[in-house]
Amino acid sequence: MKVQRQIDVKSFESRKGFIYDYQKLIRDVAIPYQYAVLNDQVEGVEKSHVAANFENAAKAVHGEDVGDGFYGMVFQDSDAAKWIEAAAYSLAVFPDPKLEEDVDGLIDKIAAAQDTDGYLNTYYTIKDKEKRWTNLLEGHELYCAGHMMEAAAAYYETTGKDKLLKVMQKNAEHIYRKFVTEGKEGYPGHPEVELALLKMYRVTGDRKCLDLAKHFIDVRGVDQDFFRKEAADRNWTVWGNDAKDDDYQQSGKPVREQKDATGHSVRAVYLYTGMADLASETEDEELLAACRRLFESITDKRMYVTGGIGSTGIGEAFTVDYNLPNDTAYAETCASIGLMFFASRMLEAEVDSRYGDVMERAFYNTVLAGMQLDGKRFFYVNPLEVIPGISGEAVTHKHDLPQRPGWYACACCPPNVARCLTSIGKYAYGENEDTAFIHLFAEGKVSFANGLVFHCETKYPYGFQVSYRILEGSGKVAVRRPDWSTEKFQICVNGKAQENCEKKGYWYLDGIKAGDVIEITLDERVKKVYASSIVANDSGCAALQRGPLVYCVEAVDNEGDVLSLAYAEDGEVKAGEFEPELLNGTVMLRASGYKTRRTDALYAYEKPERTACTITAVPYYTWGNRGIGQMRVWLPER
Amino acid sequence: MKVQRQIDVKSFESRKGFIYDYQKLIRDVAIPYQYAVLNDQVEGVEKSHVAANFENAAKAVHGEDVGDGFYGMVFQDSDAAKWIEAAAYSLAVFPDPKLEEDVDGLIDKIAAAQDTDGYLNTYYTIKDKEKRWTNLLEGHELYCAGHMMEAAAAYYETTGKDKLLKVMQKNAEHIYRKFVTEGKEGYPGHPEVELALLKMYRVTGDRKCLDLAKHFIDVRGVDQDFFRKEAADRNWTVWGNDAKDDDYQQSGKPVREQKDATGHSVRAVYLYTGMADLASETEDEELLAACRRLFESITDKRMYVTGGIGSTGIGEAFTVDYNLPNDTAYAETCASIGLMFFASRMLEAEVDSRYGDVMERAFYNTVLAGMQLDGKRFFYVNPLEVIPGISGEAVTHKHDLPQRPGWYACACCPPNVARCLTSIGKYAYGENEDTAFIHLFAEGKVSFANGLVFHCETKYPYGFQVSYRILEGSGKVAVRRPDWSTEKFQICVNGKAQENCEKKGYWYLDGIKAGDVIEITLDERVKKVYASSIVANDSGCAALQRGPLVYCVEAVDNEGDVLSLAYAEDGEVKAGEFEPELLNGTVMLRASGYKTRRTDALYAYEKPERTACTITAVPYYTWGNRGIGQMRVWLPER
Repeated sequence: MKVQRQIDVKSFESRKGFIYDYQKLIRDVAIPYQYAVLNDQVEGVEKSHVAANFENAAKAVHGEDVGDGFYGMVFQDSDAAKWIEAAAYSLAVFPDPKLEEDVDGLIDKIAAAQDTDGYLNTYYTIKDKEKRWTNLLEGHELYCAGHMMEAAAAYYETTGKDKLLKVMQKNAEHIYRKFVTEGKEGYPGHPEVELALLKMYRVTGDRKCLDLAKHFIDVRGVDQDFFRKEAADRNWTVWGNDAKDDDYQQSGKPVREQKDATGHSVRAVYLYTGMADLASETEDEELLAACRRLFESITDKRMYVTGGIGSTGIGEAFTVDYNLPNDTAYAETCASIGLMFFASRMLEAEVDSRYGDVMERAFYNTVLAGMQLDGKRFFYVNPLEVIPGISGEAVTHKHDLPQRPGWYACACCPPNVARCLTSIGKYAYGENEDTAFIHLFAEGKVSFANGLVFHCETKYPYGFQVSYRILEGSGKVAVRRPDWSTEKFQICVNGKAQENCEKKGYWYLDGIKAGDVIEITLDERVKKVYASSIVANDSGCAALQRGPLVYCVEAVDNEGDVLSLAYAEDGEVKAGEFEPELLNGTVMLRASGYKTRRTDALYAYEKPERTACTITAVPYYTWGNRGIGQMRVWLPER
Repeated sequence: MKVQRQIDVKSFESRKGFIYDYQKLIRDVAIPYQYAVLNDQVEGVEKSHVAANFENAAKAVHGEDVGDGFYGMVFQDSDAAKWIEAAAYSLAVFPDPKLEEDVDGLIDKIAAAQDTDGYLNTYYTIKDKEKRWTNLLEGHELYCAGHMMEAAAAYYETTGKDKLLKVMQKNAEHIYRKFVTEGKEGYPGHPEVELALLKMYRVTGDRKCLDLAKHFIDVRGVDQDFFRKEAADRNWTVWGNDAKDDDYQQSGKPVREQKDATGHSVRAVYLYTGMADLASETEDEELLAACRRLFESITDKRMYVTGGIGSTGIGEAFTVDYNLPNDTAYAETCASIGLMFFASRMLEAEVDSRYGDVMERAFYNTVLAGMQLDGKRFFYVNPLEVIPGISGEAVTHKHDLPQRPGWYACACCPPNVARCLTSIGKYAYGENEDTAFIHLFAEGKVSFANGLVFHCETKYPYGFQVSYRILEGSGKVAVRRPDWSTEKFQICVNGKAQENCEKKGYWYLDGIKAGDVIEITLDERVKKVYASSIVANDSGCAALQRGPLVYCVEAVDNEGDVLSLAYAEDGEVKAGEFEPELLNGTVMLRASGYKTRRTDALYAYEKPERTACTITAVPYYTWGNRGIGQMRVWLPER
């Protein structure tokens, strides 16, 4: 049973503040921009063709030959799905008839592209119907179905419109028939449909959706030869993926036996999200235990300080424990979004601040870094060190770009950021019949199942006071104490400091009622973060963090040279004033340190000349917004 | 004109000391072992089949169908060639009738495998004669020919036997006819034949060898489309090498215009060696200027402190300036041997200690590290950081093994180390009509063209006194002052300290005659080495060096944990006593430093607990001889 669950997206409504500004940016810039891209109306970026694919698939469904009518990746459909999902969430709190019309129009195209048996995928419908369901390893049919189910559930949830939901119910029936009724072997190469089916289940109450999700999770890795046999049985491939690379697609063992987070990191966290959701939904303790192990594998051994995951571009994947190279990191934006999903589902199974801590770390650092501050450009890969001339240039660093491109051929990240930001309320707040849960501090009005309605006001993550004014109802409130709020954490109710009432990192407040004011005071001090000495890549280094924000050092603030800098051990680090004009509004940190004079000789026997200096740092999520230059999260400390 | 040249290999004879011990190891262990491998008589290592390939090729030459008679890499023949070359050098000073018989026997097989037109290559002769000369990009025909020419020249030089030399003269004629007389387009994908033809030229006086070397160097990169056209014209490939990757095979520009050392690092330095040799042989100033630029590109921007080159396993290649990852380094043993060749040829063009310094650095560190101290196992790749669990395990670190394997499918390095060590006199000493040049300090008797014969006695690299007793003749002597001998460098002749008589790093001593004793005192202090701050991979770190030996820190000497260690800034570093039983005889260093207590948490906000400690370091060339454990050359300094 879920001990608490995500609130409905409509229950969080923000009208100012940090989160609002981002949601507004998504609404005003990213959603219209992405819609234009999907319709191929933006010059100078990778062609999307996604809307046209659906149009052509509709013709193909009716037997029309549309020739080369498909363009893009095998999972191109999912870009439309994620965009609809983002738009749906946005519509939940920002009515916008024009946007709703655009969504409806796109949904009409999607519905028309569905085959009579419920099948829906433009790649196979246009290119070759015979190939349907013959390549679960690479084919992404279940992945695309999953994203479209998420979109359908979201649009129904927020607008009540059920056209897409009905399409996807029919599609789920089709998949159920194929894999359960008819007993077709196999499971998706790219997990996603599992978590989506569970969302469908909650919206429709259709037990088959739950059963199908459970089926895919249960059979995964049981027949470890499945992908090999499948590969032997077909004469085509998308990319030539290695069917024997069980780690890559998390199929080496039944999921309940898996211990290490392996392979393609987005696939991994999407799978674990579905597993965690199913575990609490069905009270499956064994599955939950596996989820706990996998969560620990990630967060105790394979996660960057920025909440990024995936240490290599080779397979966009996890590598091995404690291998966290900063310059060649993959740390895909989508993977950190998936990590938020996973953490949020773990919180539904057991309230423990370690999940909220990770969710917050991933969100405020890697996820936000994924998008340019203007909402128009995106990082797929989020390195923790960038050196112009090496990053994006050396053969080993081709994926680590020094600035965000406009759109990708593989455009999974931009719409993923958009849907994450527009639905952030679901992650920030949780509920059960008794209690309102505060996981993240997000300004706005929130309504809970226990009847409480409150309004949050805060300058977080730049302010360290969070105030909740109770507007309606009465009940319990639970507040997460962030791991970084080490020295200071105070909760006052109507001015009265509460005694420590902490359980697994949450403070539980009883008898809260309308008119009350809960005031939370967090630790505003700048922290130096140290990695365990087992992490070779961060040896001798420190990073800066304030609140949830990990900072980085950019050339533009440091005389053009970051590589020469080191923090002074025990040196002072001061937070500046909030500068509203800087990087959409931010606080710089200034740390005492040393600057080494660069020698011409590659190696020298003399100790290099060092002078004391002040090092300026900015939040990691803001990096790369002021041109190309060196950037580092970790600096040596001396 | 060459201002000085390598001595004849027979002119250096060592009977004790560091170099002798290595030569003895090669003679007693590596040469017999490698001969057994070449003849497939060693169990449990990669099959070589090289001798059998020649036997089968001989049958194929006479029209016999030998079916699958070839085994190995396309360049398998070169293993035999390098082994003959090593054996030849060894025979120069250590007569060994059994070894000579083995070499003669192998040469008979090689000679029998030569086609009537002079063509010699077992891969093409056995597998498909039609493919001859159709794939210069990957085919390695000129590479194998080059190695066999080097072997032929060496065996003739040291034994006077000319059977192989005649074979290779005929082979050179064949190649000349093909590429010069008949005007076949193209140049080798893997340079090597150029430097080999120049060796043939010096042994035979045949001007065609010089002309052919010059031809291949002159045409390289002039027709930049050559490899693309060649690829389009053939319907087969060895590995599917990218014909458009000009950097990989140094064919993007005519060689005289090349500025950056690029691509496969062994190919690069073999090419540059041939270029440097040709430049001084033909007084080609433009070519020499290109060599100088390329040497600087390597040594000022792309070389590890160990003299290793090649920053990535992807293409076994250089990457970009200042990208020198320690853990994922390639730093192939063969590449450092090639760097010695290049430096030695540059010294023939202009006497400048920077060339000798690099030669010494590469030799005493990466080249020697390439071989296990027992002479039986070899590193292909020489990382500067090894972490069990990551090195050899992570997908990005598969090539960086934590211990030396016995033999490789691609066995270029083991025989290369053998031929380098047995001919080290050529690199250590040089000569012209006037002067005897001391580039490296190698114990033994040396005879020079100016009539001087002297005997060197030294405990170098562990002793810092080098004494030269003049046995015969009279003339000038020039001594290289090593770059690391910063504070102390004294030369006494018959006990009288010489005034500084330095020119470009060499001290020139006039009027040396029989009976004189030259005593050189070098700087025995331990140095901390610092990389320029532009090298991100070494930020905040120091390495230790004493004499020419770069040190590293191994787990076995440091309570099993190297990652927790940091040197104390301005801390003392002491050299221990020479320990004859340790690692074949070595000196440990003990540095004051700090040990960080490892935290369980991946990241922590508390400054980690640190205690003062003593860090023990051993020479890099000895690493990996005592089991698997962490190893680092660079440690943070605080």
